[in-house]
Amino acid sequence: MNSRPIGVFDSGLGGLTVVRELAAAMPGEDILYLGDTARVPYGIKSPLTIQTFARQDSAFLLRHGPKMLVVACNTASAAAIDMLRASSPVEVIDVIQPSAEAAVRATQGGIGVIATEATIASGAYQRSIAALAPGREVMAVACPLLVPLVEEGRDDDNPILFHVLYDYLGGLQRFRPGVLVLGCTHYPLLSEPIRKVMGPDVVLISSGQAAAMEVQRRLRESALANPRPAGGTLRCFTTDNPERFAKLGERFGQRKIDHVELVGTDELEKGPVS
Amino acid sequence: MNSRPIGVFDSGLGGLTVVRELAAAMPGEDILYLGDTARVPYGIKSPLTIQTFARQDSAFLLRHGPKMLVVACNTASAAAIDMLRASSPVEVIDVIQPSAEAAVRATQGGIGVIATEATIASGAYQRSIAALAPGREVMAVACPLLVPLVEEGRDDDNPILFHVLYDYLGGLQRFRPGVLVLGCTHYPLLSEPIRKVMGPDVVLISSGQAAAMEVQRRLRESALANPRPAGGTLRCFTTDNPERFAKLGERFGQRKIDHVELVGTDELEKGPVS
Repeated sequence: MNSRPIGVFDSGLGGLTVVRELAAAMPGEDILYLGDTARVPYGIKSPLTIQTFARQDSAFLLRHGPKMLVVACNTASAAAIDMLRASSPVEVIDVIQPSAEAAVRATQGGIGVIATEATIASGAYQRSIAALAPGREVMAVACPLLVPLVEEGRDDDNPILFHVLYDYLGGLQRFRPGVLVLGCTHYPLLSEPIRKVMGPDVVLISSGQAAAMEVQRRLRESALANPRPAGGTLRCFTTDNPERFAKLGERFGQRKIDHVELVGTDELEKGPVS
Repeated sequence: MNSRPIGVFDSGLGGLTVVRELAAAMPGEDILYLGDTARVPYGIKSPLTIQTFARQDSAFLLRHGPKMLVVACNTASAAAIDMLRASSPVEVIDVIQPSAEAAVRATQGGIGVIATEATIASGAYQRSIAALAPGREVMAVACPLLVPLVEEGRDDDNPILFHVLYDYLGGLQRFRPGVLVLGCTHYPLLSEPIRKVMGPDVVLISSGQAAAMEVQRRLRESALANPRPAGGTLRCFTTDNPERFAKLGERFGQRKIDHVELVGTDELEKGPVS
């Protein structure tokens, strides 16, 4: 069981920022990654549709026998985590609860959250933080243009990028949080410009780091960690365009991605959880 | 046969700008509309995936017995029109060929085209214009942020919108085309700001207007027009979130949308062309 892979899924490429943190923290673990690029983005869609897609993504990964599932997508974590946990034979780690815990630990002050429309509308971050630190001030802001901006690959000093960031983050600048949670796996690619806009005193928390620590802790507690100190592999599946996945994926994952396997969405829709 | 509806599909809500033009030109025709909002957008995806989705969208509409199909999505027109025509029992009208014809008729000068990444990369507009007017200068520019900007619903005088437009349209301003083709069904909602950036001398051509004239012409030629002078209905299907479709759809279609029916993507994937 210890040598089985960790299964990770995301609506697209963003989850590779989580994979990067997992591999950095646990270099001996094998990772299976599914990016549902045919149906990306999830963040503008309804809870019902996100739940359907998340169930199919999980079922696909479960057919490959992982020892743990990681929902690397904030939107899917917000809409579907309870449903996924109820039906999964292995433990399911989300990105929201670990990020909320890291945020509460990192500051006594207010907490800012930026994420997709669907994640913010779900109230999942607000609820997680309220449960951990009742009465803590939270400001949550939906930033729909940031995902397409990251995918366009504009430079860190691009003026459009700064106009958009000042537009979305104006209220958060005035709120002066101790911590800003980057509640979408695309946003770590904007860490530098976000830091410039928010100033050096605001701690940025990325879902990937927080989730990787949680995965490591849970694998140790359940004695499922791979004893190898290194040599973990990454096997990638995508529902659209393996070439684009490999090319853009290197920017998100900061590693070479050699081989990406195409999976049709019809294949995702066909099978029950094994 | 004359009383049968016209079937129209799009990746999402944008095609309702085409429906608006169809209904204005042919108020007696019934229209069936399918917006694939669960898998929107198509414009960032590969030709293979776009073809799969377009074939499923068409097959769904064909099960409702339309007398003609309209591919209201520029991206799907670019990637899939030949394939759809080869397998459809009824005539299939796309939005690219009529727009290219309208552009060539409207100017002796250069032609600008703005569209999604996938539409521009396909070269479909460039090829259509070259076939109609060999040697005509064409400048085609992909504008990936415009669809999410329209869906955010920013005002026509929003500064971010203008920054993005000046960024994308800078080269086209210098090119000084006689015509600018709005090669994505979302873009008519930006007509006013685009006109401000490009100046009053550039004629804007929208896919909807051009396609509606083509549909009208083809229905008359094949004696399939509905003889009613008015009273045409609109029946809408969507793969995600009927409430959001009805609400946002009014902005795109400029009419009240009373009833939207939800269709699962699994239902789209199941059936053969009838």
